[in-house]
Formats: sequence, structure tokens, C-alpha cells
Amino acid sequence: MREVKSPANDVSLDFSLTHKGHKGEASQLSRIVQKFGGSSVADAESIKRVARRIADTRADGHEVMIVISAMGDTTDELLELAHRVSPKPNARELDMLLTTGERQSAALLAMALTDLGVAASSYTGSQAGVITTNQHGDARILDITPQRVIDAMSEGDVAIVAGFQGVARETKDITTLGRGASDTTAVALAAAIGADFCEIYTDVDGIFTADPRVVPAARQIPRISYEEMLELAASGAKVLHLRCVEYARAETVPIHVRSSFSYKPGTWVVDQSVIEAEGGNMEQAVISGVAHDTSEAKVTVVGVPDQIGRAAKLFRVIAAKNINVDMIVQNISVGEGRTDISFTAPMGERERAVDALNLAKAEIGFENIVVNDAVGKVSIVGVGMRSHPGVTASFFDALAEAGVNIDMISTSEIRISVVVAVDDVKAAVRAAHTAFGLDAEDVAVVYAGTGR
Amino acid sequence: MREVKSPANDVSLDFSLTHKGHKGEASQLSRIVQKFGGSSVADAESIKRVARRIADTRADGHEVMIVISAMGDTTDELLELAHRVSPKPNARELDMLLTTGERQSAALLAMALTDLGVAASSYTGSQAGVITTNQHGDARILDITPQRVIDAMSEGDVAIVAGFQGVARETKDITTLGRGASDTTAVALAAAIGADFCEIYTDVDGIFTADPRVVPAARQIPRISYEEMLELAASGAKVLHLRCVEYARAETVPIHVRSSFSYKPGTWVVDQSVIEAEGGNMEQAVISGVAHDTSEAKVTVVGVPDQIGRAAKLFRVIAAKNINVDMIVQNISVGEGRTDISFTAPMGERERAVDALNLAKAEIGFENIVVNDAVGKVSIVGVGMRSHPGVTASFFDALAEAGVNIDMISTSEIRISVVVAVDDVKAAVRAAHTAFGLDAEDVAVVYAGTGR
Repeated sequence: MREVKSPANDVSLDFSLTHKGHKGEASQLSRIVQKFGGSSVADAESIKRVARRIADTRADGHEVMIVISAMGDTTDELLELAHRVSPKPNARELDMLLTTGERQSAALLAMALTDLGVAASSYTGSQAGVITTNQHGDARILDITPQRVIDAMSEGDVAIVAGFQGVARETKDITTLGRGASDTTAVALAAAIGADFCEIYTDVDGIFTADPRVVPAARQIPRISYEEMLELAASGAKVLHLRCVEYARAETVPIHVRSSFSYKPGTWVVDQSVIEAEGGNMEQAVISGVAHDTSEAKVTVVGVPDQIGRAAKLFRVIAAKNINVDMIVQNISVGEGRTDISFTAPMGERERAVDALNLAKAEIGFENIVVNDAVGKVSIVGVGMRSHPGVTASFFDALAEAGVNIDMISTSEIRISVVVAVDDVKAAVRAAHTAFGLDAEDVAVVYAGTGR
Repeated sequence: MREVKSPANDVSLDFSLTHKGHKGEASQLSRIVQKFGGSSVADAESIKRVARRIADTRADGHEVMIVISAMGDTTDELLELAHRVSPKPNARELDMLLTTGERQSAALLAMALTDLGVAASSYTGSQAGVITTNQHGDARILDITPQRVIDAMSEGDVAIVAGFQGVARETKDITTLGRGASDTTAVALAAAIGADFCEIYTDVDGIFTADPRVVPAARQIPRISYEEMLELAASGAKVLHLRCVEYARAETVPIHVRSSFSYKPGTWVVDQSVIEAEGGNMEQAVISGVAHDTSEAKVTVVGVPDQIGRAAKLFRVIAAKNINVDMIVQNISVGEGRTDISFTAPMGERERAVDALNLAKAEIGFENIVVNDAVGKVSIVGVGMRSHPGVTASFFDALAEAGVNIDMISTSEIRISVVVAVDDVKAAVRAAHTAFGLDAEDVAVVYAGTGR
């Protein structure tokens, strides 16, 4: 386990994860990676504001590396330009084009820091040693060779790295890591340079127990385990990207998700063992958060012959089209040797799924396909589930009381998800949030039930 | 001497520099570098138009490398953004920022070519092996290591290189070569990859005998020597940058300056020996062109003690400020042991020159300084001057007849420049253009005079 320290400029940060006793002093000098998103650097004024914030951290003596996204809507504007030139832009060239956005914001931020008397230098992903596969538009990080940026930091520079990009090991071409992957760049660089932690600055205060726009009583979560964060991200929570959290867990990099518009402490995403060592999570709540997702559609394949291998065939057809199936439910066969199979998939891939299935209709032998876009997924996530029986019952009771009908169910060790009518999603989220005692000013957790 | 060939898609090109006999066939496959400026790629439509043009050249089987500038006003917009962030942007970071413009247009052009079925790939200056000094904003090319782009061309790709940029040999930082230096990039790359010639595409048809906006009867020059082009560029002709022509002369790269809006042949800039081998230049005109420049100011330092070393001291003071002095005239001393020294310098540097001189007033011992911004320089350029006496007299006669008073005079082996009142510049240019038989439809050259 890596030691977690607080940046000294967090005036209000008294978060208990700060190990005061480890080296015998309260304020230690850290090596910190800070990532700022596009909304934090939307214009010249924002860039100067972010620069002042970084200057504060640097003034406290910390070694600082910055990972930066493109300004505001730059990436979307460049995409639009590409589509004006080409109906289907070449992937290698699209990466060449899009990566200029982060380079611009990195250079501008370095200028602003220099003006504040803070030595700073910007680096492309390639210069910072972000080595990737050559899958343009969705490359994976293979390795980080950060010597150049480590040298810059050792000389006192704030190293500013253009996020979202790298260079392909084989072709030496410029690659991008997929939309929103600057978070991943930051965590990967933090691991590679042995940073004490990685701060992800965004436009919200951290991770909440539910989307505050849906649940006004939602509370900020002070700390959460990688596993829970992964489940929340996979269930529709948008603050952190799944791949970023996976990387952080694999490399045990503590993440601090916080707002670039305030100095309040945000949410620490850390290993479960750290939370347990610190005496467990807040008020022993069983559920850490409620997530929802209305971006998926439900596809029901009606009248599939109830024979061994038919379901496998169906999902092989889907998988061949690289469609990301989420939940699957097979109805109990009700005589006649046929059954219905339902699954959910991203709304944007639903059309392709249906086309692929229809092409294989004879082979699979189903009768017809029913599509339902008016669905939503509601998930409760928490490691407490492992040791507390009855969570499922409490969840379903709450939904029943709220008059919400459950359409599909899926579970993992620390998550229960249900598919409901899209119009019921908000009510379901609020009911679960209340039932598990997550509402602010009401944290007494009471539930009962037998088994899960 | 390198052999000069015509690109086969020049339907109307019957330019005599095309060596039909050399390899015994009319149409040879060439390796060509084509450079397109910002006005040629101002928007998505222009980029597609340029792509079609390149596709034509490629379809004829030529190996093609493209050097491209940033789209339209991109560089100015990025500069403005930098100045919104920082009053005096850090030079290294400004280079990081500005170089994104050419990368964007290079990537977009590659997309457009790919859509036309033409294999193409874009490269940053660094990827194309443009190695420079580390003088940010005004770096010089030290070396070109073009293996990567040569490989791409050998595989049939059109290699598209972002102009105006390189990578510093020592620091590995991204550099720019100064405004308008994409022309230089193109010529340097043409030399490095052994191209047969370099085409500079612009928004005019080529080099003219005078600025057509001043002299409606000005004619396009079909071919001109490097030496004459250098003198014209240094005298105010704006189509080609001085450094680009210097590079072309040093490396003997034939340049074809032409319009990206038509298929008409433009102006070939080649070695004088090629022109002579082809039977000399058009109609044996003594003067190739008339250039003018109204961007300089005249500074007169009045009452300088007429002693050895005073003038040297004066110009050491100017040189220490890196001010680019053009013409210098020292008046004949008229008793009292004092003289006046006049010089011209770019309008933008005039203030600094005066300040520097005033600081050294006691040391130099002059009485006062008179500044005159209302001046202009008119130059006639031609290698024919070497062998034709009387050119100076003809020039001055023409000016006198036009009622133009001469203020200062300077000459080189193939150029005569005069400084006149700015209001007389147009009349002077027209008078010289007519006197030396350069007007279209009137090419009889008659002049007389004794000595130069």
C-alpha cells in the first residue's frame, strides 16, 4: 500500500486518510499528479485560475505533474471540422487532429504558470512517454517511459502533460485513448512516476451517494473503495471513467476526485483495506451509493427454441458485432419448447444488434424481436452487502412501496441492479436512497429481511 | 544541376525548362514537393479542392510530398489566445501552441485524400525529421532526417508534413521557424529527399515584373534566377521569403511558384546557368522586375562629428539592439567638421533605434535626430545590369521625367535602389517599369546612357 497524504494547500482538508504518524510530521512533501478537465480550462480566464491553484500547490514545495484536457468544446469542434472534410475521417488522421486540443491547453497553462513565476513546461503524450497500442481512437496504454517529465520535475518544473494521447509502440504514430481518457492518462502517469496520489479536478465536489439532480438529499462520499467505484461507474455514475478506476486499482493509486471551483476536500477512491484500517466507512452504511443509467435499450428475442446452445449462438452473433451486452434474462420456458431471451445494450448499438440477429434468424430459430427504449437501470452498490443479508429484500421492498415494477435483475458480489420503466427511474433511485439511510440528515440505517 | 521536369497534370505547361531529351521521353515520373499556404486551405471546401489537385498529380504516378501551412487565420487566432492568457507568452510554449495549426491542416488534408482513394499520411515537423536550433520562434534548420517520410512515399503514400516547425536537436522541444517559414520547410525537405523540384502554391499566378496592383501592365515572369529573386524578395516583393530562396540557391532546388486556384504555369526560380543554357531570359530584358517597399522609415542623425570611428560607433549602437539597417547614406561634410548620417530601418524598429541612439548621444556626439516615415524604396533588379552599362542613368532619367526626386541611393551588382517620398513610390515604379520595357504588349527595350 502506498501512503496517502493531503496536499498542503487544502486548507479545510482534515481527512483521516492523512497519515500523520508515518514520518512523524503533519505536512509532508508529496509528488502529486493533478488532472484538470475541459470545463476547468474553458477559456483564458479559467486557465489563469487553474494556474494560480497549481502555483499554490507548488509553493508548498510539492512536486507537481499536471494532466490536462482540451479547452471546453475544442474536441467537439475539431470533430465537426473533420466531418466537414470527410464523411468518415481516417482514424490515424483523426488522432493527429484531435490531439492538438490538449497540446494547446497544455502550452497555454505553461505560459500562465510561467507568468506567475512558476517554472513549467508542457509535453505531448509522446514526449511524456505514454506508449500505446496502435488502435487509433481507442488505444490502450502499454507502457509509460516518463524519464523526460521526471527530469523536468526534478529540476523544479511543473510538468504539464497533454492528456488523452500517446504514441503507438510499433508505428510511432500519434494515438488517442478514447473520449474522457485524460483521467486514465493521469492515473497511469501517477503510477509510473511513483506519485503519492492523483487528484482529478472536475466541476462537481466529488462522488455522491446518488445523482444530486435526482436526489436532492444525496451526500458527498468522503471515501470509497476501488471496487465500489468500479461498480458505480459501470452502473451509470459519470464522474470517473471505468478504465481510470481499473488502472488505479491495478496500480493502487489513490485518487482524490474534487472540484476545481472550490478548496473543499472531495472523494478519495482508495483500497478497501485502507478504509477498513481507518475504522470502516461512514456510519457503517451497507450501501455506498445508488446509480442509474437511462442510456440502454432492452431487446427481447421472442420464441427462441429451448435447446442447448441456442442462447450461446444468439450471443455469439451479438459479440461478433462488438456490441456491449449488459444484463441478460432468460424467461422460464412455459411449455411448447420455446423461451424468450432479453438483454440490454447501449441505445446506440441496439439497431446493429437487431440487424445482426435478423440476419441470423433462421440459424437461431426465434420468432420475432421486441425492442423497448423506455427502460432504465437502477443499481445499489456497497461492499457492506457481502456481510449484510437482506439487502436485496430491502431494495425490492422499497421499490414495491414506491410502486415501481421490476423488469430485469442482475447482481454482483457488491451490486444489485434492476431494470425498470424509464418513467420510474427517479422514484426508484429516491426510494433506494432513503431506504438505505443515505439521505443527508438521516443516516440511521435500519433494514431487515432474510437472505438476499 | 538538378534536372527540372514538369508535373504531368499541368495541362497547359509547355515551359521550356522541361528537359524532354534528357531521358528520351516527354513525361517522366518525378519526386515532387508541393507546398500549400494558409489561403489555399482556408476552410473544409478548400482542403477538399487541394486534395483533388494533389490526387491528380499522384494519379500521374509522381511521388508527392506535401508541406502545409495552418488554415487561414489559425495562427493569428492562436497568437491572440496566447496573449489573452499571457502578456508575454513563454517562447517554448508559444511554439508548442502555434505548431498545432499546421498539424490540424495536415491531418484534415490526409483525411480528404484518403476519401479520394489516395493513400496519405500526415507528419509533424519532428516526425518528418526537421531538426533545428532551439531558438524558439525563429529556429534555423540544422539537418533533415527524412527516412520516415521517404519510407511512406516509397510505400505509395502522399506524405503530408506540417510546415513551419521542427524539433530542437539539443532540447528535443518543438520549435517554429518564424512566420511564413513553411516555404523554407518545403525547399529544405525537397533538397533532403532529392526531389526534382518544389512547387510553392499561393494565391497569385507567380512572380510579376512589378506589383500588379501598382502597375496594371505588369507581366508574370516565366523564369528568374535565384540571385534576382533574392534581390526582389529583399526589396519588398512578398511572394517568396528570403530564407526560402537562399535555401533553394544553396541546395540548387528549382522552385515553381504558382497559383492553387488555376492550372496555369507559374514562375520558375532556377539557377542562372539554366536560364542561359535555355537561351537567356525573355526578350533579353536587362531588368527582370521592379520592387517597392513602404515599410521602412528613414532616420537622419544630424551633426555627427566628422571623425574616424564615429559612424562605426553609431552603427554599433544600432546593431547591439538587433535592428536591421537597410540603406545608409553619409552626406558630404560641409565644413564645421560635422556631417549627417541617414539610414533606413523597418518602421517597427525605428523607435528602438532612436532610443538607443539618444542613450549614446554624448558618446557619438551628434546634435539631433530627424525621423521621416513618409518614404518608400523603389528597386530595379536584373542580372542584365552586369553587362549593360547605362542602366542607372536610364533609371534616374525615368524618375526625373516622372518628377520624382531621389533621396537616397544604394546598389548591388544586380540591383539599384532609391529612396523617394512615399507619395512618389507608385509613379516611380510605373516609370521604371515602362522605361525598361517591362509593360505588357510593349517589350521593346530601348535605353541609352554612358556608364552606370
